Amino acid sequence: MKSTWIILLLVLIASTRSDAQTDEKTIERLLAEQVTSWNDGDIEGYMSGYWNSDSLSFVSGGILTHGYRGTLDRYKKKYGSKEKMGTLEFSNLVVRSVSASAAIATGVWRLNRTNDQPWGRFTLIVEKKPEGWRITHDHTSTGD
Amino acid sequence: MKSTWIILLLVLIASTRSDAQTDEKTIERLLAEQVTSWNDGDIEGYMSGYWNSDSLSFVSGGILTHGYRGTLDRYKKKYGSKEKMGTLEFSNLVVRSVSASAAIATGVWRLNRTNDQPWGRFTLIVEKKPEGWRITHDHTSTGD
Repeated sequence: MKSTWIILLLVLIASTRSDAQTDEKTIERLLAEQVTSWNDGDIEGYMSGYWNSDSLSFVSGGILTHGYRGTLDRYKKKYGSKEKMGTLEFSNLVVRSVSASAAIATGVWRLNRTNDQPWGRFTLIVEKKPEGWRITHDHTSTGD
Repeated sequence: MKSTWIILLLVLIASTRSDAQTDEKTIERLLAEQVTSWNDGDIEGYMSGYWNSDSLSFVSGGILTHGYRGTLDRYKKKYGSKEKMGTLEFSNLVVRSVSASAAIATGVWRLNRTNDQPWGRFTLIVEKKPEGWRITHDHTSTGD
């Protein structure tokens, strides 16, 4: 009987770990899709990785932007043309589950543009919502 | 019988919510203690809010620092005197539980020093470890 419980426990641990791995892969895919949308010049497509909620929060350059609409407006204002958008590249991506419904994703962003190549790091909180995994908080900063 | 289940469910929801509130208060206290240590010129005391692990990660100015030791060294190098440390102040603090063992904390930091008052925003991942709640990831940036 005792060994049955141990086996059950091991199965439970293994299935939790494999759930976490599946979630991490799903989130990696979500971010890869965002990059594809960005590089197609499709800011709205890029934004579909974010939680469509007034509770979304976005931090950049000391400014905290509240809500999906505000974040979309900020992107549209800052990257109003294909030239300003450039080509987005994520690297050093690490996705780590912290629970069955939350994960953090960290990495480096870089924009390859004709006249400059701004870059920096991001920390994302990604949470499982009824519509799927979505970024609920984004802290993006620029490298020195 | 049905109403018994509903009552049990409501009790469970209420207790989960009150657990989250207790966790959030504990984390607020942890951060308040960090501020007190900083303002006493005690960097090691300040660092005790961080997870003492090689897996701690700290992002600032485009640089990712790995581990407790590296993070402590960075702080000691950057803030080597009481004058450089100045007086630390946190404001606009929001702590939000994302699971029974993880929360995110966001806010504004400001250093009041004789010659300047640098400030910016932080996003912290705080996780429940055997030794208590500890910051496992810190993304700090400077305001423009």
